[in-house]
Amino acid sequence: MQPSAKALVPFVSVDHMMQLIHHIGLPEMLRGIAANIEEDFRRWELFDKTPRVASHSANGVIELMPTSDGEVYGFKYVNGHPANTVDGLQTVTAFGLLANVANGYPVLLSEMTLLTALRTAAMSAVAAKYLAPKGATTMAMIGNGAQSEFQSVAMQAICGITNVRLYDTDAAATAKCARNLAASGLSVTTCTSPEHAIEGAQILTTCTADKQYATILTDNMVGAGVHINAIGGDCPGKTELAPAILHRAAIFVEYTEQTRIEGEIQQLPADYPVTELWHVIAGQAQGRRDARQITLFDSVGFAIEDFSALRYIRAQIKGTPFFHPLDLLADPDDPRDLFGMLQRATPKQNT
Amino acid sequence: MQPSAKALVPFVSVDHMMQLIHHIGLPEMLRGIAANIEEDFRRWELFDKTPRVASHSANGVIELMPTSDGEVYGFKYVNGHPANTVDGLQTVTAFGLLANVANGYPVLLSEMTLLTALRTAAMSAVAAKYLAPKGATTMAMIGNGAQSEFQSVAMQAICGITNVRLYDTDAAATAKCARNLAASGLSVTTCTSPEHAIEGAQILTTCTADKQYATILTDNMVGAGVHINAIGGDCPGKTELAPAILHRAAIFVEYTEQTRIEGEIQQLPADYPVTELWHVIAGQAQGRRDARQITLFDSVGFAIEDFSALRYIRAQIKGTPFFHPLDLLADPDDPRDLFGMLQRATPKQNT
Repeated sequence: MQPSAKALVPFVSVDHMMQLIHHIGLPEMLRGIAANIEEDFRRWELFDKTPRVASHSANGVIELMPTSDGEVYGFKYVNGHPANTVDGLQTVTAFGLLANVANGYPVLLSEMTLLTALRTAAMSAVAAKYLAPKGATTMAMIGNGAQSEFQSVAMQAICGITNVRLYDTDAAATAKCARNLAASGLSVTTCTSPEHAIEGAQILTTCTADKQYATILTDNMVGAGVHINAIGGDCPGKTELAPAILHRAAIFVEYTEQTRIEGEIQQLPADYPVTELWHVIAGQAQGRRDARQITLFDSVGFAIEDFSALRYIRAQIKGTPFFHPLDLLADPDDPRDLFGMLQRATPKQNT
Repeated sequence: MQPSAKALVPFVSVDHMMQLIHHIGLPEMLRGIAANIEEDFRRWELFDKTPRVASHSANGVIELMPTSDGEVYGFKYVNGHPANTVDGLQTVTAFGLLANVANGYPVLLSEMTLLTALRTAAMSAVAAKYLAPKGATTMAMIGNGAQSEFQSVAMQAICGITNVRLYDTDAAATAKCARNLAASGLSVTTCTSPEHAIEGAQILTTCTADKQYATILTDNMVGAGVHINAIGGDCPGKTELAPAILHRAAIFVEYTEQTRIEGEIQQLPADYPVTELWHVIAGQAQGRRDARQITLFDSVGFAIEDFSALRYIRAQIKGTPFFHPLDLLADPDDPRDLFGMLQRATPKQNT
């Protein structure tokens, strides 16, 4: 039986997503997603916002992250299981969906393991665009896992970074990152300690995956004027920065209610002042105040960023071969006649 | 590029679901799902429970319904848009997912428009099995939309109902339902009023779709000893029963916290006593007390029922051709090397 067009949802598989990225070009795609994020952050107040719905277990977490702009609804399924790499599995896998608010019908289903890496990198670069010191050229990249190359290329494509300094407790991860960035046009330095990595860097990005209170950056490592892009502290009990750094920095977050639970600021009192980044992007709050200020983007990832990335994909796949229609929705000729549709689907050999 | 087995999630399309239902047989499948629901309700306390995450709009609602038994996580996406039928669309469409809690990887993606109809019917029949008067033979089915035939067949397969009496404000819907049930073995009577439909019925099922406070059953229509199976009152502002009926009935619900918001009991004070059905199934609370008692199952649908239905599908599709593997998850050889996987996927013409 051939399902009708209404029953079919465009599906972007991992393979199609990779083809789409190569078709558009990674830097261009990161710029496009970043532009959507900026656009959506400017109309932040319009969105339905709720902290993600998390299901925690001993090994990790599974989360649903819904949002809506009133016309389009989106959500992402994402897991975080730090020990997965031991078994040759991804720490984070994800997929996402957009639907039409007016009738509830899904309009896009997409892999989001790759897309989450892109939107996280694009988000970091958008924050750095508003918060990093003027003329920043060098980023220290601490934690050289799956996210590290995307962070580096986004900072290059959106903020004009020309040098990255890599460090990971696992030298093989650093070597992998350096190898992957060899053709990027970035000048890459592999470092043997966090202290070595931060030398001369105006942007310090931390992206480590341990689910525990860790101290990737200590207080004395953070000098005046730097911008810290803290990615890895993103769930209860998982932080990367010494509390003293937080007290010296101007702190910017995505969605305060969620970041208080999941971000670096879970180490601070619940009323500690922070600025939501959308206020800065919308011109309603100041970003970096002066060249000596320490700025911190305490990033945990928010549903609106996934929404921005998914609507980018929805627009880009039109007219391309980089999706296929998925028979996800039942669509009887008479909508009240689901049973009749089922009956008419009786296999020939049984009739 | 051929994705590895880890990257592939078994997907049950609408077409495959229909083939599976015909392969197993609808009554047998309803019994199987009902058995899973009873099993899961008996271990109710083990589940992660949260009211569904609803996004309401002028036309309807989009909901995410997650749960977990500690080993398997499940969620359903479902919309409810009563005006959809005007445009030839389904009021309710749905899909669902199961994932492995230990590593967060999805293990099943399935259409759930059909499956929700089955599990809702199976749930109603499980409730009637515990609450309806002994030897009930006749059900009044008020509201003859997409759910009505499934309700009828489930009551037949699980509770031994032999007669259904159909009524809908739209006679065409009643005719459709009667036609669809012609080969079911049920004795079907089409009725011209709700009063006509309830004559001699021990089970009164209401399943109408208007999003407003409606009165499908008035107080004087409900005699001693009946079991009311109220399906259609399932979101804020949407009810089907006169409040006076609620005051005369022993009320059973799925998950009190959610039903207070969405069910018939939203018309009652927040502390009005109700019994969660799982207590009855687990032998911890009394169901029907005597032959004259009015029992009411105030059904709104709960995540655990979807979980029960999805795990039934997961078990049944093994070794069948009724699913296909979906390339939903990125699976690099080295899990930290997502970027390398992307680079290696460079189309030949660009290298």
